[in-house]
Amino acid sequence: MCRWAAYLGSPIYLEDIISRPGHSLVAQSQEATECKTSTNGDGFGVAWYDSREEPGLYRDVYPAWSDPNLRALSYQVKSGLFLSHVRASTGSAISRNNCHPFAAGRWSFMHNGQVGGFERFRRYADMCVPDALYQHRKGATDSEILFLLALKEGLDAHPLQAMERAVAKMESLSRKRGTTPHMRLSAAFSDGQHLYAARYSSDHIAPSLYYRWSASRQGWAVVSEPLEADQDGWKELPPGGFLTLSATQAQVSSFDPTHHDVDDSCPD
Amino acid sequence: MCRWAAYLGSPIYLEDIISRPGHSLVAQSQEATECKTSTNGDGFGVAWYDSREEPGLYRDVYPAWSDPNLRALSYQVKSGLFLSHVRASTGSAISRNNCHPFAAGRWSFMHNGQVGGFERFRRYADMCVPDALYQHRKGATDSEILFLLALKEGLDAHPLQAMERAVAKMESLSRKRGTTPHMRLSAAFSDGQHLYAARYSSDHIAPSLYYRWSASRQGWAVVSEPLEADQDGWKELPPGGFLTLSATQAQVSSFDPTHHDVDDSCPD
Amino acid sequence: MCRWAAYLGSPIYLEDIISRPGHSLVAQSQEATECKTSTNGDGFGVAWYDSREEPGLYRDVYPAWSDPNLRALSYQVKSGLFLSHVRASTGSAISRNNCHPFAAGRWSFMHNGQVGGFERFRRYADMCVPDALYQHRKGATDSEILFLLALKEGLDAHPLQAMERAVAKMESLSRKRGTTPHMRLSAAFSDGQHLYAARYSSDHIAPSLYYRWSASRQGWAVVSEPLEADQDGWKELPPGGFLTLSATQAQVSSFDPTHHDVDDSCPD
Amino acid sequence: MCRWAAYLGSPIYLEDIISRPGHSLVAQSQEATECKTSTNGDGFGVAWYDSREEPGLYRDVYPAWSDPNLRALSYQVKSGLFLSHVRASTGSAISRNNCHPFAAGRWSFMHNGQVGGFERFRRYADMCVPDALYQHRKGATDSEILFLLALKEGLDAHPLQAMERAVAKMESLSRKRGTTPHMRLSAAFSDGQHLYAARYSSDHIAPSLYYRWSASRQGWAVVSEPLEADQDGWKELPPGGFLTLSATQAQVSSFDPTHHDVDDSCPD
Repeated sequence: MCRWAAYLGSPIYLEDIISRPGHSLVAQSQEATECKTSTNGDGFGVAWYDSREEPGLYRDVYPAWSDPNLRALSYQVKSGLFLSHVRASTGSAISRNNCHPFAAGRWSFMHNGQVGGFERFRRYADMCVPDALYQHRKGATDSEILFLLALKEGLDAHPLQAMERAVAKMESLSRKRGTTPHMRLSAAFSDGQHLYAARYSSDHIAPSLYYRWSASRQGWAVVSEPLEADQDGWKELPPGGFLTLSATQAQVSSFDPTHHDVDDSCPD
Repeated sequence: MCRWAAYLGSPIYLEDIISRPGHSLVAQSQEATECKTSTNGDGFGVAWYDSREEPGLYRDVYPAWSDPNLRALSYQVKSGLFLSHVRASTGSAISRNNCHPFAAGRWSFMHNGQVGGFERFRRYADMCVPDALYQHRKGATDSEILFLLALKEGLDAHPLQAMERAVAKMESLSRKRGTTPHMRLSAAFSDGQHLYAARYSSDHIAPSLYYRWSASRQGWAVVSEPLEADQDGWKELPPGGFLTLSATQAQVSSFDPTHHDVDDSCPD
Repeated sequence: MCRWAAYLGSPIYLEDIISRPGHSLVAQSQEATECKTSTNGDGFGVAWYDSREEPGLYRDVYPAWSDPNLRALSYQVKSGLFLSHVRASTGSAISRNNCHPFAAGRWSFMHNGQVGGFERFRRYADMCVPDALYQHRKGATDSEILFLLALKEGLDAHPLQAMERAVAKMESLSRKRGTTPHMRLSAAFSDGQHLYAARYSSDHIAPSLYYRWSASRQGWAVVSEPLEADQDGWKELPPGGFLTLSATQAQVSSFDPTHHDVDDSCPD
Repeated sequence: MCRWAAYLGSPIYLEDIISRPGHSLVAQSQEATECKTSTNGDGFGVAWYDSREEPGLYRDVYPAWSDPNLRALSYQVKSGLFLSHVRASTGSAISRNNCHPFAAGRWSFMHNGQVGGFERFRRYADMCVPDALYQHRKGATDSEILFLLALKEGLDAHPLQAMERAVAKMESLSRKRGTTPHMRLSAAFSDGQHLYAARYSSDHIAPSLYYRWSASRQGWAVVSEPLEADQDGWKELPPGGFLTLSATQAQVSSFDPTHHDVDDSCPD
């Protein structure tokens, strides 16, 4: 399990999400409260948009709580759209290439959850990544595969449907060759314009996901856990929910991978 | 606060102390039970003696629980005398040079505890290290200073007295310029022949320290926390105690820094 | 291009190959003389055999010339059979999982050379790794694939033929989807008993490979470049040569991937 | 020896200095041409000013040529004033705290050169750092000491004179306890408003230092080596020269440490 936090709105310093709040992402790296693994010390990352179409990306394998580069970067850099993540590895190596967010072109993606028994069918999952996207397969996580499958399924044109299809394929792989739970997912991703988030589970336990509009900041925060313990306004995205955020609007849709036919163009 | 474990006896694989026991040092890096900070993820180190007079030294800044090099090294290397440590920084940087054990010549040293307000008088402590030893002042921790002061005070000739004098000097520095608690100490060190350990506090809270003879291994373990939850034979070294271990014998002496005149050859 | 050095014989300190000779492996990491890239600063690794059947493995992403852990390990550890490597990346990421040697079970493997256009067909190469071995596919290099294909082809039973078949398959992949040079290879590998080396090229430029018996050490060194500039007794393994070393014997055979039918059980 | 490059002017992407030019700082990390050590692979750093008074700081111990974080940061971040550096260690450890630039408050500083025999008198140099600044003494380099001594001598009020006095003190320490060359210096530093550079040598060999106004960029570059091989307009700062750059003006003054009385408030 991992923890993450994202932002869309008027530009703020990265530290306003990553390290300054009482229950900031860095605080959650040391003591998360809404998941089994309270320590998320197996690396971190941040993807931020600015004047380029593609995001900047800073990831490293140290615990977020002690990295002076992360502290300095978060102190100095402002952004109106960014994703940040702290990792608790569930098996794959501690490596920069396994740290979230992942980026490809203008898209960035981060994930918390489980795809049961992934190591048993990692090879089959890799095979499902098409040739044109395989250059982006740099690590060994299930999360990176989810992202690449979503790109394959048309993330540019239909973010919601593409992510549903990617999740459906991974869940199908897990059912055939993996273990339970087949899919527990809390994910956020962005094309540099909108901020999307999905919450879903193949059983009855979906990882937590909250969002909140800040009138003072004029921006949205989307997070694994609320950034302040006693702050009003945090809404829970329901399991099976999909969130689309633009500058001032939030739209909640249904996220249901099960109503898609699973892609059979690659083995499972 | 940190956790550590040391061994003296018939050669065993490092992993027999570091990672295999139920409450091994690596397990303690994730969930220590006898100290305030349960996570010790700010680096680790091991110093081991073999056919050289000087110890080998492997230290890195990652959490011990995820480092494949530590796992492989502990799996392959056998030693009859080694010190191992996991760190929870109390302020100084996460840097290899701040990881324990420290080594100089044939000596190695590791430490758990507090020297209150050290950052306020680090410069004065540095000044107390004599010229001939200053090449070994590579990091910025109070622990490394303790070690170098003990060398200055004659660790080779009188291990117990030299360590008492070093602790007395540091406690004196803390009393003049630092904060409470002025000294809480649990330390282990070796010259490649004997294994020494000290437990002491300037107040009533001394960090935990246990030792145990294993008849099956024909060796001593000295640790911050017992390596198995329900294992007989662990003895607690009392506060104000000093332990000297040789191949088959354990000798407990009094460790009392307060009966020494403090060294005035450097400012405090 | 990379540089490597291996040893089989009476146990010696690792540093006797890695850092003490005038043109040691560490010296070659700073200034190699027999290859285009004189700096090999993109990581290093050593696999050494001792009392375990499986090798110990220490790899990191720093330049070999400055790593204090490598220095200390090489100073302290003795082994009668080890492989060591310094890397100059030709494209894939600087990551521990991309550092040589690679290890699986009792086998270890390291490589210097080129498989032309590998990034264009990495996905096809990955698909050729059978399910049972895919857990060992941790990085993204052509070298790791070569090793895993050789294991697939029966490295245990027929080291020479298995490596020929693996090289033939990779060369075939490069001819269909890659670029020239399709294969330039200088590799060493071991099962913990013997030390094997192969030199081969699909064109007329094969990477250098030398070996030498030391009567004083009672051991074999096999290297990319001679460890001392003006030392007698270095023999060049000819292109198309395969070297099998046991305790006291060296056998040179022909290494010819072209006489095997290429494995068609996976796409190329 | 090390290489560095700084910029002051209209905001540009960091990569426009660090990695895009033909002989960019990253290119110089692999193959510098105007110094003895062509490889500068022992870490790197960048300090950049933006909307904060204090600079952002990103430093790491890897070679600059292969770090994906540096690449991504340089691609995304724009700044109108920044300092960047690649390191070739002359002895002190490869550690983030030994990487340039150094920062304290709003000041940043980087350095290329030699203070002969520094390791012999490091302790005396450390003692010269006043108590109030000792919190910034985090590493073990001569460069960091130079910076802290300059701060002690009044960098805020008189940048030129303060740096002269700091250099004079270090040169004096080297004459008493070190070796030749006592001082070779090429340094750049900034308070977030101006960009300063100094070139000096106690013998006849001063490290190279060039600067150039770009009309298209509307900014100054100050560098160890020109960023393009065949580009007009690079001026050499003469040995014994001090450069003060503001938005559009360059002023060259004399830099002469020898006309100051050396500070005797600390031992040498």
